[in-house]
Amino acid sequence: MMMKLTFLGTSSGTPTRHRNVSGLAVQTVLGADWFLIDCGEGTQHRVLQTPLSLNDLAAVCITHVHGDHCYGLPGLLASAGMGKRTKPLKLIAPLPVWQWFEATRALTDLHLPYEVEHVDLEEQQLVYEAPGVRIERHALLHRVPSHAYRVQVETRRVRLKADALRAVGLPPGPAWRVLQSGEDVPFDGGVLRSADFADTQVDTAAAVVGGDNADPALLRDACKGVQLLVHEATFTQDALDKVGPGPMHSSARLLAEFAQSAEVPNLILTHFSARHQNEEGMAALMAETQAHYRGHAFLANDLDTYELDSAGNVTVSRG
Amino acid sequence: MMMKLTFLGTSSGTPTRHRNVSGLAVQTVLGADWFLIDCGEGTQHRVLQTPLSLNDLAAVCITHVHGDHCYGLPGLLASAGMGKRTKPLKLIAPLPVWQWFEATRALTDLHLPYEVEHVDLEEQQLVYEAPGVRIERHALLHRVPSHAYRVQVETRRVRLKADALRAVGLPPGPAWRVLQSGEDVPFDGGVLRSADFADTQVDTAAAVVGGDNADPALLRDACKGVQLLVHEATFTQDALDKVGPGPMHSSARLLAEFAQSAEVPNLILTHFSARHQNEEGMAALMAETQAHYRGHAFLANDLDTYELDSAGNVTVSRG
Repeated sequence: MMMKLTFLGTSSGTPTRHRNVSGLAVQTVLGADWFLIDCGEGTQHRVLQTPLSLNDLAAVCITHVHGDHCYGLPGLLASAGMGKRTKPLKLIAPLPVWQWFEATRALTDLHLPYEVEHVDLEEQQLVYEAPGVRIERHALLHRVPSHAYRVQVETRRVRLKADALRAVGLPPGPAWRVLQSGEDVPFDGGVLRSADFADTQVDTAAAVVGGDNADPALLRDACKGVQLLVHEATFTQDALDKVGPGPMHSSARLLAEFAQSAEVPNLILTHFSARHQNEEGMAALMAETQAHYRGHAFLANDLDTYELDSAGNVTVSRG
Repeated sequence: MMMKLTFLGTSSGTPTRHRNVSGLAVQTVLGADWFLIDCGEGTQHRVLQTPLSLNDLAAVCITHVHGDHCYGLPGLLASAGMGKRTKPLKLIAPLPVWQWFEATRALTDLHLPYEVEHVDLEEQQLVYEAPGVRIERHALLHRVPSHAYRVQVETRRVRLKADALRAVGLPPGPAWRVLQSGEDVPFDGGVLRSADFADTQVDTAAAVVGGDNADPALLRDACKGVQLLVHEATFTQDALDKVGPGPMHSSARLLAEFAQSAEVPNLILTHFSARHQNEEGMAALMAETQAHYRGHAFLANDLDTYELDSAGNVTVSRG
């Protein structure tokens, strides 16, 4: 797998008996570091039900300031501190979320044994970069500023042409590792060039994870070349028509039509209204999606994990 | 029963897989109104596992500002709002908790369809009063100002002396209800006095619920006449000796010795350190308690309910 997503909450607004509010853990093939997109109340409780460690959490990315997407933040960061975390943590979030976290720290006697570094969404599009990982934010449309995160993972595997190296008379040894790392090697009065003796295979996988959003088409650029879109579908179209445009959420139909037109091969729906959280409601959401989208569609449940491989295939394990 | 306590969290500091952080629901025989003492993150999730409705919540009483006792407040109040609550709610809490709630409301676009009225602990000892219910706060000793709540419930049953009324010639009817309500009734040119024809039986039950506290003996006055004390026993005495006095918590031994000397007949221990949250740890806490206390001792688990009757008996249903 290139990327592994674990849903920590799939309910909109309030928790229900079987679904928590928003939280999504993103792991990559590159190592133990993982990313948390949104952190509704009770996210740390869901993390306890997974093998994830708060010590390996590299960054928290908050999509917007509404409580069902951020009220779990102080408790999760406090628990990481009580777990003796010392590694700095990036908090990628709109400014009001940061201000709220600072107010919380000041007013509730919260002392963390590690640094929390705020990355302000408004100031840059590339909000996180580490070897092999890039996270960008893309603006959405909601009652407050809301964003999607585009997570891209890249792996490079360098394979030496062993037969060719033996043919020129260089036996396996330290010089092979130098060539594999991309550097040239002096040899026999001349130079062996890495480019001649090493093949590099680059694999990438990319997923877009939306926050609350009334207009999926805003993600057209962000979705170019991605294998997977995770997006809210709070309502069926019928329910959305009855509720009206005030809450500024998407229907399964709106989302499916966009995903079809953007040719995204895999689509995971989440953030379901409590009214749809029964067998009938889920069947209606899926039927509406499949009527407008011909890719692979999934309805997320809490603790489901989705693995995305380098060929763009998604496999799901139900939690 | 006079009072019913449901434990919504029994772990100190951080949630664990089987215990949430602090929260305790108090119901009374008087009606649907209930009281929440402390509201750690995930309290609303625990409430979903009980028959309690957020619409009937009369007051939230916070013992102190530490996150494991109050980080669930914004989410619980938000969910009550999304549940269309309109009844005002009292928030009985130290000032910083109120300031934090106000900051949360301002920064996270939180709009509640009901009023939240702050009752400042520092300003009065009697923090809540309604017909039959009195809640007082009592100061404790912790790293930040911390309080216990003493909840007293009183019922009055008036029984008319039916034979005596028939003997003077007043048949059952509206006048009987007037006499039962405590008022006198004109009759046969004179007056029938309620006091002569009605017997009033008054039952009371009282419980003290502590916040974090290094010195249980501070509750000596508060515990006079109470049938039940609920108090933290974060550590065994051995563990407390190793941890040292810095965290300012109680051991089972400290608590048991106090409860014995104060002659409290029922004692529920809660707020356990994760290190004791296994069979061996629980057995050690109970053994230590019973070595120093001869009343009825209980170790709380999440979703346990304890009913206190007017005779001072406690019956427990495991959650």
